[in-house]
Amino acid sequence: MRAIDRAGKIATGMNSEFSFEKIAADAATRARVGRVSTAHGSFDTPVFMPVGTQGTVKALTQQMLEQAGASIILGNTYHLYLRPGHDTVNQLGGLHRFMSWERPILTDSGGFQVFSLNSLRKMNEEGVEFQSHLDGSTHFLSPEKSMEIQAALGSDIVMAFDECTPFPATREEATASLELTERWARRSKQRLSELHSDPSAAEEAGTKFVNKTQALFGINQGSTFFDLRERSLGGLVEIGFDGYAIGGLAVGEEKTAMFEVVSNVAAMMPADRPRYLMGVGTPEDIVEAVALGVDMFDCVMPTRNARNGQLFTSRGKLNIKNARYRDDPLPIDEPCRCAVCARYSRAYVRHLYMSGEILGSVLSSLHNVSFYLDTMGMIRQAITLGTFDEFRDSFLSGLARGQD
Amino acid sequence: MRAIDRAGKIATGMNSEFSFEKIAADAATRARVGRVSTAHGSFDTPVFMPVGTQGTVKALTQQMLEQAGASIILGNTYHLYLRPGHDTVNQLGGLHRFMSWERPILTDSGGFQVFSLNSLRKMNEEGVEFQSHLDGSTHFLSPEKSMEIQAALGSDIVMAFDECTPFPATREEATASLELTERWARRSKQRLSELHSDPSAAEEAGTKFVNKTQALFGINQGSTFFDLRERSLGGLVEIGFDGYAIGGLAVGEEKTAMFEVVSNVAAMMPADRPRYLMGVGTPEDIVEAVALGVDMFDCVMPTRNARNGQLFTSRGKLNIKNARYRDDPLPIDEPCRCAVCARYSRAYVRHLYMSGEILGSVLSSLHNVSFYLDTMGMIRQAITLGTFDEFRDSFLSGLARGQD
Repeated sequence: MRAIDRAGKIATGMNSEFSFEKIAADAATRARVGRVSTAHGSFDTPVFMPVGTQGTVKALTQQMLEQAGASIILGNTYHLYLRPGHDTVNQLGGLHRFMSWERPILTDSGGFQVFSLNSLRKMNEEGVEFQSHLDGSTHFLSPEKSMEIQAALGSDIVMAFDECTPFPATREEATASLELTERWARRSKQRLSELHSDPSAAEEAGTKFVNKTQALFGINQGSTFFDLRERSLGGLVEIGFDGYAIGGLAVGEEKTAMFEVVSNVAAMMPADRPRYLMGVGTPEDIVEAVALGVDMFDCVMPTRNARNGQLFTSRGKLNIKNARYRDDPLPIDEPCRCAVCARYSRAYVRHLYMSGEILGSVLSSLHNVSFYLDTMGMIRQAITLGTFDEFRDSFLSGLARGQD
Repeated sequence: MRAIDRAGKIATGMNSEFSFEKIAADAATRARVGRVSTAHGSFDTPVFMPVGTQGTVKALTQQMLEQAGASIILGNTYHLYLRPGHDTVNQLGGLHRFMSWERPILTDSGGFQVFSLNSLRKMNEEGVEFQSHLDGSTHFLSPEKSMEIQAALGSDIVMAFDECTPFPATREEATASLELTERWARRSKQRLSELHSDPSAAEEAGTKFVNKTQALFGINQGSTFFDLRERSLGGLVEIGFDGYAIGGLAVGEEKTAMFEVVSNVAAMMPADRPRYLMGVGTPEDIVEAVALGVDMFDCVMPTRNARNGQLFTSRGKLNIKNARYRDDPLPIDEPCRCAVCARYSRAYVRHLYMSGEILGSVLSSLHNVSFYLDTMGMIRQAITLGTFDEFRDSFLSGLARGQD
């Protein structure tokens, strides 16, 4: 398989201030360490982006996220568009200022939520009509509208508006979907470029505050068909983006199928641009995908599972509601150096859960997000030291070991 | 009115390591600044104790409480007895260690919750039989049992087991109630003394870890009858406690009636012991009660109201759900120096509420508790500087002014 990054074949991305620098590469795998620079500072990859759906990473303060080492977070275009409205966020100075988060932010395109939260949607070439899951009101999202919303939010990394190809899909469906996604990707780039360069375009869109340093990522589709994935990627690279994402995975396919796609696609992605695997995943998934050359990840799992009492540890998952933890004075995860494990016992966190206390969700979310971020730190360190392969083995065998 | 603290009339309290030192007194009012020392450190009075019902001040981490300046918190005996159980807390090293809070803790007696949360209770001289509000199981609480639970929790200040006289009460009912409370106060002191001094008594009660430095406070009753209040106080002083509380207020009586009782009782309370007005109240109430000589306060209002979107400010209460705050870039309270006002806008906090986000409760609780604690700091400073009367006027007129 050839990488689609031969000199002269990659069109320029959106933003010359956005950069990706390779710092280290693992010899035994395709894992690599890089540094992404944005107008809101830089972050090292492989990176995990906690998901701040509605302008908040659920149950955590921004200070907790900073102290846990979150270097970039994700915001959801669909949710912020509906509430409080991108216009409101824009008038208050953009999403960074609105939520008081000065580090980088990536916003998704809204497409995934439109498709997953709305059964009453109507799609055509132009875009998607959908009904708000909040009040049933009718809205229309298109590549242009998604760019206007993301420009108004002022995130550092904007995602092109794509159709997340449903799974399973026939070859014909997957082809039609990736072709639509490619046309939408082109329109996304065109519109965001206008909004950045043409003050009257931004004004017409109601955008007061404009962050001209936004980067734009294209999204690869093609379901589980390798040749369609390659074709999709070729089209995106020809349009030219600041980074490339693998979409349409973790939507119900088998894990082996997912990793086969990731392995194939990541190998073809331009080596000098960040590679982002959307919506993935468990700690195991992330370590495996890093080995395949992926740089960026996001997932609601650490926060969502935390609110359900499922905690991540170096020895696999732990359900804090289990009666065995009633008198357990140990921290959630003994080797963990997070603020929760430094101070609180399993017995206390369990008590908070059993009592329905908000602090149970707060502490569990903080631990889980810290566990993910610390894992990424260990991954970067191992790659830099040339010991990633050994790290992966010992990390995965630790997870498989389970609690005593 | 004479103070019931003439030399030779006060019996000794429980604990010689517990002390109260008067530091400053206001000339124009009965307000005073003092310092209470316990085995877990000292705190300055007038003090507000955030309520940590179930071993957590709702929605706040212990670090937030420390940084907001909470110098003592309150734990609820009734709730901790039912869940996780005082035995569990005791085996884990006591309430301080269980919840990782190394500053002083006061525990209530459980009486108030037994009376307010249970309609199916049976009371006699021995104690109260009640059904758990959690699972309907039958339990019995007595002065002895309350002391065993509080000894097991290991709090720094233990409250005697009292009957919170219902309001309204006839003279006869109030008399019978205060007499019972006095007998229960005597039994409370007797039992706590045994638990501290007799290892076999503690062992029989299942108490592994014993904090022998616990102080014991008696609770004044007598409804709105001044002579009954005086009689109740006289009885308590004769038994001898480390501090004295005014109970049976803020239970439905008029504000003027409450302040008349506080004024009368506080003037009679021993000047060399802390005076604690239980369950009070609004910022206005607290400032008024400080002027009457009260040293200690607790109330669920800052945390409960926060979860309902009602925020305390220097210009009175603010309902963050109000649509007027939708685009408001100002902090919750402009002069406030708390961690929330330093970083977040009304528009953001409102968005969190409207979106049902946990962070809305966290930030609002942190602001409200900070507002209470900062108010107490300003009160202490004004008393020390001899400007309390002016502070009170300007503080109350600010609260009355309302939002613009």
